[in-house]
Amino acid sequence: MNFSKILNLVLAVTMLVLIIKFSPSTSTSKDAATQEDTISTREAVLSTIQNRKSVRHFTDKKISKEDMTAVLKAGMTAPTGFDARPWKFIVIRDTAMIKKMRKGLVYARGLDQATAAIVVCGDMTKVHKSDPEFWITDTSAATENILLALESMGLGGVWSTVYPSKKRMAFVSDLLGLPESILPLNVIPVGYPAGIQKAKDKFDPTNIHYEKWSQ
Amino acid sequence: MNFSKILNLVLAVTMLVLIIKFSPSTSTSKDAATQEDTISTREAVLSTIQNRKSVRHFTDKKISKEDMTAVLKAGMTAPTGFDARPWKFIVIRDTAMIKKMRKGLVYARGLDQATAAIVVCGDMTKVHKSDPEFWITDTSAATENILLALESMGLGGVWSTVYPSKKRMAFVSDLLGLPESILPLNVIPVGYPAGIQKAKDKFDPTNIHYEKWSQ
Repeated sequence: MNFSKILNLVLAVTMLVLIIKFSPSTSTSKDAATQEDTISTREAVLSTIQNRKSVRHFTDKKISKEDMTAVLKAGMTAPTGFDARPWKFIVIRDTAMIKKMRKGLVYARGLDQATAAIVVCGDMTKVHKSDPEFWITDTSAATENILLALESMGLGGVWSTVYPSKKRMAFVSDLLGLPESILPLNVIPVGYPAGIQKAKDKFDPTNIHYEKWSQ
Repeated sequence: MNFSKILNLVLAVTMLVLIIKFSPSTSTSKDAATQEDTISTREAVLSTIQNRKSVRHFTDKKISKEDMTAVLKAGMTAPTGFDARPWKFIVIRDTAMIKKMRKGLVYARGLDQATAAIVVCGDMTKVHKSDPEFWITDTSAATENILLALESMGLGGVWSTVYPSKKRMAFVSDLLGLPESILPLNVIPVGYPAGIQKAKDKFDPTNIHYEKWSQ
């Protein structure tokens, strides 16, 4: 075999490797893994909204400070009446504090395994005096943003109600030392979901009316 | 030039073409176009939450019935107290009805150009009797889902408040013929945004407290 023939052989093998490696029609496991990343914004958002579920069981893995800030940033982009942004967020990462919180909130089972919690509060010094009820609508929208951000990040949480129970609101206010003007809406236990949980399909077309109630 | 040398040349040129065509580092206009589609779910959701804005100016293009259903489906996945799902949605596409609605809602400027509107309502027959206020939190979360779904679909809308104004609630109830048990929370003018509008950056780290209020 002369030099040219050997070179030909090397070139041919290299080409074959290149074709196999870069051919778009080759379905390798790597392609399957990246397929998830190529969905559109519409698909990503609608599926995240559909997949959000109330997560109450968590692993030991803790949410990073950067991720927590991203979650709270999502909360703070919600629309608010008169653009008042009447909210405050208390982040709890001290497990002793989470346990104390749990004792006063019998329904908040998510706190049992949570490695962090967010208390979403209304700031009554910021709401328009004529319509103080905006603290409820505005912090509710912020809470939904937080829950969707968590879902999109592979994290989970659950809206554990504090408002409208006066007893629970007083308990949380006392525990966290909230001023009178700061009203707790809910506690969101936060963490990485343990196990796989499917979201509920709550679509019901009978909830939709067209043009008027009667139609 | 003998046969082997010609073959070598052909192989070398083919390899070069292959490398240029499939090299991941080559930035062509096609790559730039698909880049938008390859963002992760996290990026898509967080950026949609950040990019949501109150859209009040719309083109003539109408939202399809399929897209409207997708938007309302997003609304119906919100979390609700006791999983009661206390909501009803009135979809208005009749421009005469939108104009009538606008006359009674002085702040709802978005209705001027909207080709559709969604009235988000609470269903008091479904809320837990001990905590009727859940109609406010639950429909607020549903509204945020609707606004995010619209944003992700290239559509726009704005939360035009009806609740807590008793006057506006009475006006909308009358106009739509709502039963006493159905309370309107807001009206969302819907359409394709006219022009480019930037979302507000409302992130304020002083809204975040750690562990307790005092810290």
